[in-house]
Amino acid sequence: MRPRYSLILSAMRLIRPSNRRLSSIASSDSEFISYMKNKAKSINKALDNSIPLCNNFVPLWEPVLEVHKAMRYTLLPGGKRVRPMLCLVACELVGGQESTAMPAACAVEMIHAASLILDDLPCMDDDSLRRGKPTNHKVFGEKTSILASNALRSLAVKQTLASTSLGVTSERVLRAVQEMARAVGTEGLVAGQAADLAGERMSFKNEDDELRYLELMHVHKTAVLVEAAAVVGAIMGGGSDEEIERLKSYARCVGLMFQVMDDVLDETKSSEELGKTAGKDLITGKLTYPKVMGVDNAREYAKRLNREAQEHLQGFDSDKVVPLLSLADYIVKRQN
Amino acid sequence: MRPRYSLILSAMRLIRPSNRRLSSIASSDSEFISYMKNKAKSINKALDNSIPLCNNFVPLWEPVLEVHKAMRYTLLPGGKRVRPMLCLVACELVGGQESTAMPAACAVEMIHAASLILDDLPCMDDDSLRRGKPTNHKVFGEKTSILASNALRSLAVKQTLASTSLGVTSERVLRAVQEMARAVGTEGLVAGQAADLAGERMSFKNEDDELRYLELMHVHKTAVLVEAAAVVGAIMGGGSDEEIERLKSYARCVGLMFQVMDDVLDETKSSEELGKTAGKDLITGKLTYPKVMGVDNAREYAKRLNREAQEHLQGFDSDKVVPLLSLADYIVKRQN
Repeated sequence: MRPRYSLILSAMRLIRPSNRRLSSIASSDSEFISYMKNKAKSINKALDNSIPLCNNFVPLWEPVLEVHKAMRYTLLPGGKRVRPMLCLVACELVGGQESTAMPAACAVEMIHAASLILDDLPCMDDDSLRRGKPTNHKVFGEKTSILASNALRSLAVKQTLASTSLGVTSERVLRAVQEMARAVGTEGLVAGQAADLAGERMSFKNEDDELRYLELMHVHKTAVLVEAAAVVGAIMGGGSDEEIERLKSYARCVGLMFQVMDDVLDETKSSEELGKTAGKDLITGKLTYPKVMGVDNAREYAKRLNREAQEHLQGFDSDKVVPLLSLADYIVKRQN
Repeated sequence: MRPRYSLILSAMRLIRPSNRRLSSIASSDSEFISYMKNKAKSINKALDNSIPLCNNFVPLWEPVLEVHKAMRYTLLPGGKRVRPMLCLVACELVGGQESTAMPAACAVEMIHAASLILDDLPCMDDDSLRRGKPTNHKVFGEKTSILASNALRSLAVKQTLASTSLGVTSERVLRAVQEMARAVGTEGLVAGQAADLAGERMSFKNEDDELRYLELMHVHKTAVLVEAAAVVGAIMGGGSDEEIERLKSYARCVGLMFQVMDDVLDETKSSEELGKTAGKDLITGKLTYPKVMGVDNAREYAKRLNREAQEHLQGFDSDKVVPLLSLADYIVKRQN
């Protein structure tokens, strides 16, 4: 894998304010929140079914039961389900059924949960609070947490493979698994986490260098999995290569925007408001957007990414595209 | 997943001394060792190529480079390559080419290396010596070790998927990925590792209960991945369901036998002879075969598993089956 410095810098230069506010056709905030809640409900149900605590009324073998409990602890109650929702909507946008992409949507959320468990470990970010409750290793211990994280990633592969039972062709399923494997390895999450850890001890020649590193880190740490969510959904739904590419570009902007806003909220909100330890990036000396460019510029950058995201959706069915336009708007406006 | 107590106990009862020493047709020890070295050479070359340190003469991005170094540290020099060899031989036995199964064989070894890295972590077995050198986390630190382990598992999936470029059908590749996902999740390695960790604090009613737990633990911790190696090889080579099943049964015996001998060697050999910390299971109170049934009975059990393994190979081409007969013999006789 080669650093894509030049690509990213050009992309950043290209992100210009646009007069076309495509989001004007997006539904109202409350309509979108209700839409999102409905999607989250179906997703939560599918996730709940995917990790049982017993098998035909017989309890699981005790060591496995403990790992399943740890997997459910982080996977089930939490989150806005942005990634799986994006996967389902991408599938529907290219003409597929929600149900066709549901196993893959669950898989993406499992991969995300697995990476949260690892991020919080004592040897990583050493965090004790996540979504308003103690982190996984605080409840189950480090050993079980690491196993649960591994098990979630392996279940993600199994879930995606199970899509063949819904009539998806082997070729499409293989392509989807490939996208996911790419997103979790050294072309994706692993690179992002490694860069995050290395970033604390790096020194940069100037602000441009620092920004380049930060961007590359978040492309890998956050955007690649958001991209994979959209791409896998579109693959499952039978999208064309061009549709898949456009959804991927949209998702990259959304993923980066999500991270920019995460950094902004970490600096401007309290732990209670966020449900996780706030202000930690500042204390630990981690690179963040507000630190490199200031809070106001970071907010402005998120807005520019939102406009670019919306531009990538031009040409799709204007009704079906509404949830994606609203999702981008929602992320840039979010308060926790 | 349900515990397969009854199945395992019946299997153990069925393992009876047999007069048919199929291994008499196996080649001599020195011939087999030379055969194994040749296979290991091809495997090592393929593994070396799979994790580069630069891309078209351009060094990798620094954080990724560090992870790749950690992956190579555990994956490259080490081991007897029993699992990938089994994968290649299974492929050839059912009529396939060695090269067809090479990506999958590398994948199995990557999964194995990933689990070794985790096993050695301070929060797991806290080991500082493996194959005669410091463990991964002693060299690269816990954070990078965990990322390297994750990256190896994701690369394993990518390797297997790459088999389509060798003309293997999507259906076969899907089936192979499924077997691997099963082997690493709560139906395989994770269950075994969880049982291993839980075993230390468990109390058993009697020796039968203890043995049942020990067996179930090693079926998951060791045998399932050895099974997957053989099964995936046979799938890639286009084996029939019956051939795949027989190779799976053979591999289960070999996997268990490998573990029984590992426990015996841990108790009877020095750290220098083994290249890893010896006698540790005894100190940490881990369940082992010698502890539950005594060293002599454990050796006897390994011999019985060897006979059963060889019986499962009846019906295959008597020339092509020689390496598998010899492999089983080699494991039961190994000294480190």
